[in-house]
Amino acid sequence: MKIAIDAMGGDDAPASVVEGAVLAYRELGIESLLVGDPERVDAELRRLGAQDFPLEKVPSTQVVAMEEPPTVALKQKQDSSIRVAVQSVLQGRASGLVSAGNTGAAFATASYMLRPLRGILRPAIATSIPTFSGSSVLLDVGANVDCKPVHLLQFGIMGRAYAKYVLGRTSPTVGLLNIGGEGSKGNQITKQAYQFFQRSALNFVGNVEGNHLYMGRADVIVCDGFTGNIAIKVSESMGEMLEFMLRGELGSSLRSKLGYRLLQNGFKSFKRRMDYVEYGGAPLLGLNEVCVIAHGRSTPPAIMNAIRVARDTAVSQLNARIREDIELNIETQGVADRGRRLWHQMRSRILHLPEEEGEGGEGEGQGQSQS
Amino acid sequence: MKIAIDAMGGDDAPASVVEGAVLAYRELGIESLLVGDPERVDAELRRLGAQDFPLEKVPSTQVVAMEEPPTVALKQKQDSSIRVAVQSVLQGRASGLVSAGNTGAAFATASYMLRPLRGILRPAIATSIPTFSGSSVLLDVGANVDCKPVHLLQFGIMGRAYAKYVLGRTSPTVGLLNIGGEGSKGNQITKQAYQFFQRSALNFVGNVEGNHLYMGRADVIVCDGFTGNIAIKVSESMGEMLEFMLRGELGSSLRSKLGYRLLQNGFKSFKRRMDYVEYGGAPLLGLNEVCVIAHGRSTPPAIMNAIRVARDTAVSQLNARIREDIELNIETQGVADRGRRLWHQMRSRILHLPEEEGEGGEGEGQGQSQS
Repeated sequence: MKIAIDAMGGDDAPASVVEGAVLAYRELGIESLLVGDPERVDAELRRLGAQDFPLEKVPSTQVVAMEEPPTVALKQKQDSSIRVAVQSVLQGRASGLVSAGNTGAAFATASYMLRPLRGILRPAIATSIPTFSGSSVLLDVGANVDCKPVHLLQFGIMGRAYAKYVLGRTSPTVGLLNIGGEGSKGNQITKQAYQFFQRSALNFVGNVEGNHLYMGRADVIVCDGFTGNIAIKVSESMGEMLEFMLRGELGSSLRSKLGYRLLQNGFKSFKRRMDYVEYGGAPLLGLNEVCVIAHGRSTPPAIMNAIRVARDTAVSQLNARIREDIELNIETQGVADRGRRLWHQMRSRILHLPEEEGEGGEGEGQGQSQS
Repeated sequence: MKIAIDAMGGDDAPASVVEGAVLAYRELGIESLLVGDPERVDAELRRLGAQDFPLEKVPSTQVVAMEEPPTVALKQKQDSSIRVAVQSVLQGRASGLVSAGNTGAAFATASYMLRPLRGILRPAIATSIPTFSGSSVLLDVGANVDCKPVHLLQFGIMGRAYAKYVLGRTSPTVGLLNIGGEGSKGNQITKQAYQFFQRSALNFVGNVEGNHLYMGRADVIVCDGFTGNIAIKVSESMGEMLEFMLRGELGSSLRSKLGYRLLQNGFKSFKRRMDYVEYGGAPLLGLNEVCVIAHGRSTPPAIMNAIRVARDTAVSQLNARIREDIELNIETQGVADRGRRLWHQMRSRILHLPEEEGEGGEGEGQGQSQS
């Protein structure tokens, strides 16, 4: 089993990326395809004394810059390293891919070329966040800014499968990021999503309020990509603000010296934990193949972690599990009368059934609740 | 000028609330009406040696509990302290009111009884957040979970007026909390709101990303109430998480002792700064009278601050300014052809004009851009 690596993607590419691939082979025995400029990749391998490692070079002539719009990358760079990496997965040469390049371009290229899994309406980007007791999976964190309730339900299904089959949680709980604890709280989307979750086969623990995000209330926390992006980035800003203010608190000079060192070390290790890359990158869930996105600033160990996650995800047959769960959550619910219409609509849309069937359950108290 | 105080609202009411009112008179010379159980209020005044202060008692027999649903409070408690406090403002006995009670009930009661300002579609709750350089006003933080772009524009207009006339900023800048820096980024609501802001007379500085929330990029930061609630509450969770992790960082025992004290003090003062109450409560903007909501946990100085803000807001004639600004932003824009239709629709809705006029500007390049 090999993992394709976008060797040219990342702030420090190809140096850090190639070094991460070398680490992944050395530490974990994972072989990879290094996609990019063969000469530059070769130079890095020689620098690392790894020219004899079983790391295959796959040439590509173009690179997507970090700030390039995804559409431009997709249309105008047919030979970009990210595109060739995705192709190598499509061709069966690799079992998954890792990119630390332009996130938008990686997401767009992977979604366009790999296509969503049958039954999945919207692929999502998942990330791990640290909690008092370990970590939670948060999704979506930016791929889908405008979501419908059924999309959130699917994020829950995908996140739960990821927590179970890749992270090894026995019976992962799922929560909905929302304002207020009760099911009646929230905006139009989260209120309806709450109903969907309650009727699903998921181990749904209800709403997770913002002030409980890092408390480990659920293994998987679901939100739309707009809210997820705001939550993650506001946290970052908050950490910086707090560091700034604590530093300002340092009074006397002895205390200052000690306190400052303490804070510096503490904040460094905190930032490492907050950085989702250290946790193995952010998997794209809901595509036909395995794709893991790493941060542009990824260090070699972070790249290695992302490669490990890609390998574990491929080995776990996550995608087959997700498809089963999507079916399960459509077919096996005991659906209350009032919810039947919504469920039928949802089912129709997911399974691409004709619209009529979706409207069929509208009458109250009639018809079958299961098909 | 007197301020009405919901003496029975708050975790520690009436003790802290009455003490706050006493402080406000002693320190700032602000007189108030204390609404609630006269005997309990009297007991507090005697305890504080303030029975001869010019603080009027207004009797009410009911109290809205902290967790009571707003609708129940509105319908079933006609003689609650919050309702009687609002009535005293309506009757002209007070120039504004402060409540540290059930926020939802206070918002519902005030909105229902005071009504929105003419031209205002949705009143909003504003709050101050600390920044590296001082503070920003963030709104809405919970009153309106489902917003349209025009609501966000109005939040910007109200927040800017508050920053200028109450907080005394000379030329307040306005930003839009969003994902991504460019105007093309965001969800459907923020993308269109961006266009509205750009065409407005506001000093609009563009999008403020989550990771810049506490950087002071704008005097006023606008978002819908769902996003605002998540941003504020995730920040709280983040602060707790960070404290937990930094404490865990403490290694050796000498370092531990010193470091822990340092952290404790630092975090205490940080929490004080983050607590919006210390900043003078959260004003409800866009109602016909002045209403300031304080946190249930408010200390007497926090109550005093909220009373000061209510007084300053009343003195500043903020509501008259907001009405002028709403008109200004409808009438004085140089509206580009492509945006004319949106503006006409908006204008029609705000000024309650017949729908035809709203549709009139649909043709490209014709008609007047100003009326």
